[in-house]
Formats: sequence, C-alpha cells, structure tokens
Amino acid sequence: MPPEITLLATGGTIASLQTPSGLAPAMRAEDLLAACPGLHSLARITARDVFSLDSSNIQPEEWQLLAEAILGAAGSCQGIVITHGTDTMAYTASALSFMLRGFGLPVVLTGSQLPLWHPHSDAPGNLAEAFAVAAAAPPGVYICFHHKVIYGTRAVKMRTLGFDAFDSINAPAVGYFDAEGLHMPAGEAASPPGLPPMPEEGSLRIDPRVFLLKLVPGTDPEIFRHILRAGYQGLVIEAFGLGGLHYIRRNLLESLEELSDHGVLTFVTTQCLYEKADFSIYEVGRKVLKTNIWGAHDMTTEAALTKLMWVLGDRENRLPLITVCLANEMLQA
Amino acid sequence: MPPEITLLATGGTIASLQTPSGLAPAMRAEDLLAACPGLHSLARITARDVFSLDSSNIQPEEWQLLAEAILGAAGSCQGIVITHGTDTMAYTASALSFMLRGFGLPVVLTGSQLPLWHPHSDAPGNLAEAFAVAAAAPPGVYICFHHKVIYGTRAVKMRTLGFDAFDSINAPAVGYFDAEGLHMPAGEAASPPGLPPMPEEGSLRIDPRVFLLKLVPGTDPEIFRHILRAGYQGLVIEAFGLGGLHYIRRNLLESLEELSDHGVLTFVTTQCLYEKADFSIYEVGRKVLKTNIWGAHDMTTEAALTKLMWVLGDRENRLPLITVCLANEMLQA
Repeated sequence: MPPEITLLATGGTIASLQTPSGLAPAMRAEDLLAACPGLHSLARITARDVFSLDSSNIQPEEWQLLAEAILGAAGSCQGIVITHGTDTMAYTASALSFMLRGFGLPVVLTGSQLPLWHPHSDAPGNLAEAFAVAAAAPPGVYICFHHKVIYGTRAVKMRTLGFDAFDSINAPAVGYFDAEGLHMPAGEAASPPGLPPMPEEGSLRIDPRVFLLKLVPGTDPEIFRHILRAGYQGLVIEAFGLGGLHYIRRNLLESLEELSDHGVLTFVTTQCLYEKADFSIYEVGRKVLKTNIWGAHDMTTEAALTKLMWVLGDRENRLPLITVCLANEMLQA
Repeated sequence: MPPEITLLATGGTIASLQTPSGLAPAMRAEDLLAACPGLHSLARITARDVFSLDSSNIQPEEWQLLAEAILGAAGSCQGIVITHGTDTMAYTASALSFMLRGFGLPVVLTGSQLPLWHPHSDAPGNLAEAFAVAAAAPPGVYICFHHKVIYGTRAVKMRTLGFDAFDSINAPAVGYFDAEGLHMPAGEAASPPGLPPMPEEGSLRIDPRVFLLKLVPGTDPEIFRHILRAGYQGLVIEAFGLGGLHYIRRNLLESLEELSDHGVLTFVTTQCLYEKADFSIYEVGRKVLKTNIWGAHDMTTEAALTKLMWVLGDRENRLPLITVCLANEMLQA
C-alpha cells in the first residue's frame, strides 16, 4: 500500500501561468496533481492549498500559516510535500526547520525553474522525487530539487535560471537520486537526537525584527544607530572574510558594541559563500567578541537569520540554544 | 632584459605577522621581496608601500590612494603588482577597474590565505604568478590568485580558508597557470576598446554614498525611507531570484519607486551567486522597471556597487555609461 502523503501548495513558478502582466501563480494543488497523474502510483495523496503566492512575497507570516498547515496535516499522513517558489524556498525551509524542531514527519519542499505546463519543465521530475523523499526520509525539513536532497538549513539558491538551482552549503547533500532511485543513508535525521525538549506551546513563534546587513568597504556606522532606533531585536552581519569589519575612519566595531550593550542579538557571518566565519584569528576580529554577539560558524545566512528570528520568538527560553546545533545548521558551536 | 614592474604593498594577510592581539600586517614591500628573491629573475622591481592595512579596513579613501599610486608609477614601469588582503580584494579590484578605465598598463592584485612566513603559505606562488601576469597581460585590472587570472570586475571571494579563494563569476577566468606557465589568450583586454573616451580630469572621483541592501523575507520598507533620509545617493538591492521584491503587507516596490522619484540611482541584482537578474519575466519584476532603476544583469554585487559609486562620482557625465559595459563587468546591457 503506498504511503499517505499530504501535498501543500503555496504558489511559485511551478504553479504559474502566463498572464498579461507576466508569469503569476494560478494552478491549485489539485491542478498540479491532475497534470502529474503518475504521482498517484507513489502515494495516496491529500492535497491542500495553503496560499498562492510568488515566493518573493512569502514572509514570516506565511511561514506561520505553512507551519500550522503542516501541524494540521500531521495526524493523517506519513510525510508532507510542499510546492513553493524557488526564490525564497531556502529561507522558508530554514525557518520551518527551527519552528518545527522535534516534528515527527519528513517535510519536503520542492518547486521548479519552469512552470509545470512548459514542455521543458523540471516540475514533474522534482515533484516525483519530492514524493519519494517524503515517503522515505527520517523526520526533518528538506529541499528536494534536481536530484538532490538538502537539509532545510543548508540550502542556498545559487542560480537564477539553471535547473540545478540549489546547493548544500558547507555540508554534503543528505541524499541524491540516480537511475536506482533515492540514495539517502539511514539515520541522517534532519533533527538531531538528544536536544533539549521542544517547548510545548508557542514553538512556532518567531520575531521577524532581524536586520540583515551585508557590509561593503565604507559601510557607514550610521546604519547601526538606525537599527537600534528602528527597534530591530536582532542583526545578522555578512562581514568580510572570516568575520572582518572596518574600524578606521568609520568604526563599525564601536557601533556593534553599542548595539550589543542595548541587547540586540547579533550573528556575525561571512559574505564568502563557503567555509566558516571565525573571529579569533585576526586582530580586527578579536575586538568584536562580546556579550550578545556570536560568530555564525559555518551557518548559511539564511540559517543564521531564521535561527535568530526563532530565538527572538521566545528569547528567555531559547537564548541558551543559540550556540547549539538544532537542525544540522552548523557543524559545531 | 626582464620587464620593469612596480610592486605596491598595502598590507593584508600576506604581510601579516603574529602579534599578541592576533595576526596584523607588519611586513613592508621590501620585506616581501627579500623573502622571495626568485622574483628578481622575473622582473626589475621597484617597491613602494602605499599603506599597511588589514583589508577589512580598506575603504574608498584607500582606493583613491591606491589609484593615485598606480598613476604615479605608470611612467616608470610596464606593469603593476599590488599585494592586498583577500577580504575586500574583489571590491578594490572592481573599484580600480572603473576608476582606471583607459589606463594603459596591467594592474594585478594578489595576496594570500596564509602569511608569507608560514611554511604552507600560498604567498610565494601567488606573488610569482602575479608578476608573470603583470609582465604579459593586456592593460586592465586583474586578480591573480591560486593559478587563476580573473577580471577585477568578475572576482568574488568564495572561501574563507581554502587556497582557491576567488572565482570568476558569470564569465570564465581570463587566464590560468599550469606547468607550461601562463595561458592567457591574446586580445582579452580588461578595458574593452571602442568606449567613450575617459574623462581627462576627476576620473578617479567616486561617491561612496551607496547602500547595499540584501533582502530577506519580511524586509521592512522603513529601510528605504531611512536610505533617503540619510542621504545615500545610490542603492544596490540583492533581490530574490531574477529580481523579486515582496509587495504584499510590506510594499518594497512602492518604497523603491519613492527612492527613484527622489533621484536615488538603484541597481537591482540577485542574491543568487550565479546567472543574471532579469526583471521582465515576473509580474512582481515588471512593476519595478522605472526611471533611475536598472537591472544589474550578470554583474557581481561588488561590480554593481563600485560601478554605481563611480557613476555617482560624476553623475552628469557618467550616467549615460551606467548601462554600458566598461570593464568586462557584464555580458550585455
């Protein structure tokens, strides 16, 4: 008997049709299934539309709706597939990884670079592979795209047009497809065991007041004062190299310390795509290690941002978890 | 007779020594040469220290000093090598590419991931290769690192630790080294011919008042109002996918149009590392094509940022060049 899988549709290119003002999401979950009848040989499918948006418009409020839909579907299936635009899929997958920590089913996001109706579309293949992962993977949140299975906290959208749109950053892909089907080593659960128990109530609560600041040479420290004035509670800085910030002429270190003194939580990460941030190496780096400031190690920006939003959703209880690996988002604290 | 090459030293890891507070740049240009005596078989070398900084601290004021030092050296050599920290080398190389448009000599930036004194250092190899490029390449600004030669406008620092620290983004590397030496096809000048003549005066003038905004799901439009109030003249947005911005609940498109109405020049690029930004595909994208807003096509963020700073340095004369490829920074307008 094929497994019971719930399909949650959210819009995206996969569901888009040509309209007078460009591509726009228009197909519903049932339309996607009707266009891919082969999926019914893989699973007994329940379909639901959560919302229908271009993923550029998917924001923390939609993460909340989606997480609630996932929890609502949990009683009646063995796995969940989510169709989603590719543009912010890595952010959604990472946010859900933290919000659904301890959730007992696999949650697999997929989408496509070309709409389902297009003769060259990658949608049918991506959908079929996502259903296979939802039927077989350990609990956790994944992106399944172009034959790769990636932890929700490790995915980054790398290409605007290529079908191989996502990469797994600073960790190998957790699974892949070839002509023999899905290869996914057992025991690679996306939610590692042995973590502090997940809070019973309010586990989905996040605080979106986190600013992402990618530094450039000459970044004016005034932006730090603005971040404080505007009421942001968290900050992710994409610094230079292992975690450098300028401090001559325009003193970003002083500004960062001021934020820290006011209780703003900061992750310093690197704008290099690959490899870890590590402050302790350079003179310039050592100056910033202070209360309320952490290096993001090998986390992606997407993971650092969504982890910080999640920690801020219940600052008192979750702050001790900020340096703990919660969903494979980092190799070590 | 070996060619005359000028070495301009600026600090960086390559010149760093261990100090009680971490690695800090301490070796001068003459020290670097003394540690690599083999370089004298490649070139007759004049050495000069321009400044001595960790490259996290190199900002537009240093680009100016460096550009002046390059122009000052031009009369007495056939090529220029610059040692520079890796953290902001791609920004410096791109800025110099625009500031020195039309300059008649090759300018080659290099550095290293480990200090010159370290037994595993990549500095001696990178220095020797940079001198070979400075002796042979057509005029233009390049980064030479780990056997690759990359246009100054195409380089991105990809790795915080790996020796293969830089990649050429959306264009092949312009040259490479193997056991036969440098392979660099003739005629690949970094400053393409046929451009409008370079302004005689003030060509080095740039305006650093450009803000880089990397979007996240939920980015609050208040930041656009702040950018306007704080007096920034330019904006580079790393949007989603091909150029998406959210407009439901938090309307970034409206905010962007307001900036445009006030004369702020904006490049919209993608936060995907590879492939071009292109607004015209999606409904969400078409809404932002308006006066004072341009898609950055396949430019890197480093190139879009520094090109905008350069255009703003003489807005009246350079604005018509904003959509022209000036230094191989993009494939097409």
